[in-house]
Amino acid sequence: MAKQKIAITTDCVVFYKASSEKLKILLVERKNEPFKNDWALPGGFLEDEEPLEEGAKRELKEETGLQIFEVYQLRAFGNPGRDPRGRTISIAFWGEVFSEEKVEGSDDAKDAKWFDLENLPELAFDHKQIIEFAKKVYKSEKS
Amino acid sequence: MAKQKIAITTDCVVFYKASSEKLKILLVERKNEPFKNDWALPGGFLEDEEPLEEGAKRELKEETGLQIFEVYQLRAFGNPGRDPRGRTISIAFWGEVFSEEKVEGSDDAKDAKWFDLENLPELAFDHKQIIEFAKKVYKSEKS
Repeated sequence: MAKQKIAITTDCVVFYKASSEKLKILLVERKNEPFKNDWALPGGFLEDEEPLEEGAKRELKEETGLQIFEVYQLRAFGNPGRDPRGRTISIAFWGEVFSEEKVEGSDDAKDAKWFDLENLPELAFDHKQIIEFAKKVYKSEKS
Repeated sequence: MAKQKIAITTDCVVFYKASSEKLKILLVERKNEPFKNDWALPGGFLEDEEPLEEGAKRELKEETGLQIFEVYQLRAFGNPGRDPRGRTISIAFWGEVFSEEKVEGSDDAKDAKWFDLENLPELAFDHKQIIEFAKKVYKSEKS
């Protein structure tokens, strides 16, 4: 097997349609470097024997308390340089909830909050790009 | 950074539309274990600092001689157990050529050949599943 210096993470874009006009997504405030105190998608390192979608659901639950049962893969985001710690490839997912579920930051997250998709804070890593991609996929799925 | 035992590969499904009825794809015959002598998508291990799509194009060139300039990501295929050597996640791409380009097996490939998509040989790893997914994406892009 090739000896690579590449780590794998999963991230999840959870949508909540608050009204016909307003989409919200769930973000967490990072407790640790890099991007400490910035907002990011809930996510983290995949475990060695964990299916991709299980990693996404586990990290979501650990960081926000939110448990969802179905997530759908978007694609991999893996540009070299997207993570200042070293090469990291994120497999990104999306999911949906149908009410504004109570969430609470825990584990690697100081806080967890629903944000209006059209009014997002500064985002860690390439998460802005992941969210843009997820928004297109969500809208095409729902159209 | 997490210490993971997960390797990253890229694979590429190259389509050639031979007629309005017939799609072909490019496969390679594996020179090495696992799945030695079986047919598979051109692909292999990503280099540490290599963008994902560059990995897909490099492996395609190395194994078949075919150089293509644009590849499009399908998604990651990463079920534990898909590779008998250990956990491997493949980021899969698709591309297209507009004539039945001459190809030749080299590097890790003993042979390279165009196959009718509706008449494929036994395939290594989960490449049958990757091809099924690619076929849907290709057909929806072209419809």
